[in-house]
Parts: sequence; structure tokens; C-alpha cells
Amino acid sequence: MLVRGQKLRSLMLEEDGWALRIVDQRRLPRELVTVRLETVEQVAAAIRGRALRGPVLCAVAAAYGVALAMRKDPDYTALEEACGTLRQARPTAASLRMALDMMRQRLGPLEPGLRERAAFILAGQLCDDEIASTLTIGMNGLQAIGEAATERRRGQTVNILLRGDAGWLTGIDLGPVSAAVYLCHDGGLPVHVWVAETRPLLDGSKLLAWELAEHGVAHTIIADNAAPHLMQQGHIDMVLAGAEAITSDGDVCARIGTYGTALAARDCGIPFLVASPSSGIDFRLEDGPGSFIFEERPGEEVTRVIGEGGEIISVVPASGTRLVANPAHDVTPARLVTGLITERGVIDANRDAITRAFPERVGRPG
Amino acid sequence: MLVRGQKLRSLMLEEDGWALRIVDQRRLPRELVTVRLETVEQVAAAIRGRALRGPVLCAVAAAYGVALAMRKDPDYTALEEACGTLRQARPTAASLRMALDMMRQRLGPLEPGLRERAAFILAGQLCDDEIASTLTIGMNGLQAIGEAATERRRGQTVNILLRGDAGWLTGIDLGPVSAAVYLCHDGGLPVHVWVAETRPLLDGSKLLAWELAEHGVAHTIIADNAAPHLMQQGHIDMVLAGAEAITSDGDVCARIGTYGTALAARDCGIPFLVASPSSGIDFRLEDGPGSFIFEERPGEEVTRVIGEGGEIISVVPASGTRLVANPAHDVTPARLVTGLITERGVIDANRDAITRAFPERVGRPG
Repeated sequence: MLVRGQKLRSLMLEEDGWALRIVDQRRLPRELVTVRLETVEQVAAAIRGRALRGPVLCAVAAAYGVALAMRKDPDYTALEEACGTLRQARPTAASLRMALDMMRQRLGPLEPGLRERAAFILAGQLCDDEIASTLTIGMNGLQAIGEAATERRRGQTVNILLRGDAGWLTGIDLGPVSAAVYLCHDGGLPVHVWVAETRPLLDGSKLLAWELAEHGVAHTIIADNAAPHLMQQGHIDMVLAGAEAITSDGDVCARIGTYGTALAARDCGIPFLVASPSSGIDFRLEDGPGSFIFEERPGEEVTRVIGEGGEIISVVPASGTRLVANPAHDVTPARLVTGLITERGVIDANRDAITRAFPERVGRPG
Repeated sequence: MLVRGQKLRSLMLEEDGWALRIVDQRRLPRELVTVRLETVEQVAAAIRGRALRGPVLCAVAAAYGVALAMRKDPDYTALEEACGTLRQARPTAASLRMALDMMRQRLGPLEPGLRERAAFILAGQLCDDEIASTLTIGMNGLQAIGEAATERRRGQTVNILLRGDAGWLTGIDLGPVSAAVYLCHDGGLPVHVWVAETRPLLDGSKLLAWELAEHGVAHTIIADNAAPHLMQQGHIDMVLAGAEAITSDGDVCARIGTYGTALAARDCGIPFLVASPSSGIDFRLEDGPGSFIFEERPGEEVTRVIGEGGEIISVVPASGTRLVANPAHDVTPARLVTGLITERGVIDANRDAITRAFPERVGRPG
């Protein structure tokens, strides 16, 4: 996507053909810095430390991480260890787990001497597949936007709410959630994005807004609290959300606050669509909210704030007994999801529709 | 209420009997600073600049502000001007308008020479009335907490969600929303408060958490986005919210994000109660969301954030075309409000119940 008028990708192979170069997302929007990664430990640290974000991007990076591990040591033990390390870097992401399962299943039976080369080929294929999936998701999303636009205000700007890291930085190119928005914009259809800042990490205002500005997409930053009000006032035509993991029943584990946003969309009669490649659907998850792993993030993300004097303060004194809770994800029940935008079309968020769309995934461990 | 073991009020008369001393709420939680106010302009500036917050506190301060104006110049023109200045300092607050209407109606017919003394007496009465109302609201709220507690988990800690400036700092003593919580705590009933940080002003984590800690009430700070998730997971037994203004139909204009919180409470089957003295009900507002004045606050409150490097940054570059929207309030439709906790009991949020509870207010300009 465009940054300062130049094409940029969130992750690419270096010219030497084996090391990775990534955009360090922690440095944005202050400065655009790319970093070279040469080891599986560096890849895991980048995922864990949120230099890399977004389930799709993390999945592709993890596949390359396995390849880097195989380059150093192609033994089966090293393969297992690499997959374990990378899985632990973001245990909640369904597509990351799928990518690692695929790598282990495909590389495990090979002779150690073949593993490095095969791993790079597999990671490259996964990367290409995700790019292709994302484009298809974007086109399917574009159709959904078109329908919402026709219904609500013929020919006028479509107002879409996005939250969290929902831009191309979460994917390799376009990004599953933002794909439709970028296609809309590039195709000359008038679109405006409401960017929810997405506390506590603020990657709506820090990353998504930066991306949209660089690419020239009209947008407005808001506090998360303002989204329901703007929906009630008729300023939002649809919500596009991402997913950390989706159950086979269509329940969606996603960035904290997504559930509340879905409730507001439902109350205001606005479509709430979840865009995700099918790698985000985890067919082992069948028990709704109970089946997800929940991540608790550092409390400091919430308690370190700007004081009204303009200085950075902590609202929890060092000696205090005050506690803070900082869950990273929540679960939006399938009943609140208007549709899942996948590479096989916009499907209903229920077991029948999901099974019909992805019959080959049912009953398989991945 | 208790601060560092000492009793403290948010506003008091100085020993000279005419100047005000207030807690400067902008300086908390970093430091506890009180400020002396001697003129109506200083009072208006304190309200406008959010050194004073909370509709009840602002109403009492405004009444004293009129008295300070009368001390300087007891002419009718000065009275009108003082009321206009104070009204503009927070045009959204129903109780502030009511207080000013009362002052003008009572002082206007008097000889100028009597106005100063009468104004201080009226302001003092209003202050005493609000303290008495708040105590009654607290006792009514306590009963509601007791009922929620009995229903949900007999004898165990009651978990209450509060958001924004909902503590005693919003009132003179106890505070309309927090009154029930403090009475609960002081009475030895186990209570735990979930404090939503309340973006963008963060007065949940900056003020409410500070108050609760000083008074020794157990609490946990969360990002606003986490509240629906915690409700879904069964960690919240009830929500107590404040109001900027309530229509005669029971629609509630309140701090931005209240509507979303009410939706989550409804979806999770949790009582959502609004605590407000009847001065917060504006019988001239009859058209739901359309009848409220909406305040748009400075975008910088949203776009000035802490970068991941630990420095304060703006997510809107100076040269950029990015926009930000920062509405201060939203409207929670009456259908989502379980009850209004007033000084005349917990009443249903609809016109019949409100009219029955406050028949003397119907059809009167206040």
C-alpha cells in the first residue's frame, strides 16, 4: 500500500532470499522504521512485543519463523521447538495456530536435509495465499458495502466504522478488514472511515489512522465511547471488524470492545460484518465464549496516562492496593454478526452456513 | 469524604463567609490542591475548565457564583449577566440551568440592596438541599443494590460498574451516583467497584479511582472497552450511571459511552440504574435524543496520546487533513434504563412514573 507515495508491504523477504524485513509497528505513527529478522527467536519476539500485529501477518511471519529455525537446525526437535515458541507468542490467534500446524504437518515427514528449502517454499505459498484470500475478501466486502450504500443513501459517501489494527498492516497487502475500504477508495467510490481509537493499545488512532492518511482515505478519529452515539445519530452505515478467532458456530473472539460495538450496531440497525480469511475459523472451538483462550495484558497499558498538566502519570500509585484488569479480547455472539466476509463469500454466522462454505475443514484438526 | 484520613468537601465557604474554596479536580490524582474563588468569572472559568465537574457540584458553585456577582454589583443587569456567563460555562447540565433559573427568579424581584445577602442564603440552601437529596438518593440506591445482591449472589461482594466522574467530587458530599456505594462500604456491606476509565477525559481512572482509594473502597480500573466483556463473563452485578440531563420521558443524556454501557447491561441482563437528583430532570426536554444540546469537545483530548516509546505524541500531524470528533455526551433511550434513583425513590424511566413522582414540576418552566 502507499506510504509517502511509495508502495510498502508489512513484511517481505530480504534480497538475500532468507531474512525477513518488517515494519516495526511499535514506532508508528512517530516514525516509519523497518527491521531485519534473522532468527525464529526474533520473529517470536516481534509477535509477542507487537512489532507485528494482526492474525494474518503473524501467521505468515510465524511460517517464515519456522523456515529460519530450519535454516539453523533442521532436526525434528528444532521444528517442534520453533512451533512451540511461535505459538506461545500469540496463543489466541487461530490463523497463527493453523499456519504452524500446517508447517509441522508438511515438514515433519521430510528428510531433515530438505526441510529448510521446503519451509521457505511453504511460507512463501502461505504468504501468496493470504494475499490472494485478502483480495477476494476485499471484493466480497466491496459488494457488501455497495449493498449497504444502496440501501441507506444512494450515491453518497459510505461511512464505515473500523476499530483496532484493522488496516493493511495486519495483513501482507490490503489487510482482510480494510481490503474492501481500500478497493472502494481506489475504485473512486466515496468512502469515509470512522476510526475508533481502540483503547487501551490505541492502534486505531496510532496505526489505522496513519495508514488511511498515507493512502489518502478520508477518515475521522473518535474515542471508542463515541461510536454508539454516532450510530444512533445516523453517521455510520456499517461496521467492519476483524477476528482473532471464530468458532464453528460463528461466535467471534476479537479485540476488546468489539462486542460492545456489535451491540450498538444491532440497536441502531446497522450491518456488523466480520472480515476474516477462513484460517481465522477454528473448528475445534465449539462452546462459544467458554472455548476461547483469554489473554490478560499488562495493566500499565490502562493506568499510564497523560495528566492534565501534560505530564505522563500513573493512576495507580506504586504503593497502592488498586488493581487494574486488562483483557485483550472479548466474544461477540454469532447472533450479533450480520455476516462473515470470507474468501468464499459473505456467509451467515452459524454452523450450517460455515460448514457449507468450508466442508473440507469440518472434523479436521486444523 | 475521607482523603488521607481527613474529611474533605469538594466545595466550601471560606471562613470570611463569602469566598469559595474548591478542590481543583484537574490536578488529581497527581496532587490535592484547593483554590480560592472570589468572582463570578473565576467560578465560570472553573466550571468551563473542568476544575469543577459534575452537574450537582456545578449547580451549587453557580449559585454561589451569582452571590459573588451580587456582592460586586447587585444591579439586575449584573444578575442577568452573571446567570448568562455561568449558563454558558456548561450549557448541557440541567441542574445548573435549574439553579440559575431559581436564583434569577428569587433575586430578580428583590431590592438591589438585599440581593447579595439573599443570594448567599439561597446558594447555601441549595447546597444543603443537594446534600440532603444525595443522602436520600444514596439510601434509595442502597436498597437497589441490596435487591440486586440478594438476587445474584447471596451475601457475597456486590460488583458495581461506575464510569466517568461519578464520585463524591461530582457533588458536595457523597455524590449522587457514588452515594449508595459509599453508604454500602461504610455500612460494612462488601462492595467492589469496576471503574471504567472513561475516555477521553479519563476521569474514571483519574478522579473516581483516586476517591475510592482514599476512602478505602475496593475497586479495579478497566478500559471502557472491557466493561461489556466483564458483564458477559458475570463479573458485574449492576451499573450505576449519572446524568447530565434527563427528559420527562426518561431518556438520559450522560457522559459519552453511557449508551453503549447500557446496551451491554441490557444484553447481559444486568440492572442499569441512573442516579440523579430531580434537578437533573429537565421537563422542557420532550423529544428524546433530538432535544438535547450536544457539546463537541477539543479533539486534542483524543489525539494526544502516549507513544509506545513513552513520549507524548499527536496522532494528527500538524499539517495533516485528518479530523477528529469528540462528542461529550450521548443519549441512553429510556427503554434501556432499569430505573432512575431519585430523592423520591427508584422510579421507572417513563413519563407517567416521572410525572407521578414530581407532579409539581410538570408544566413549570424549571
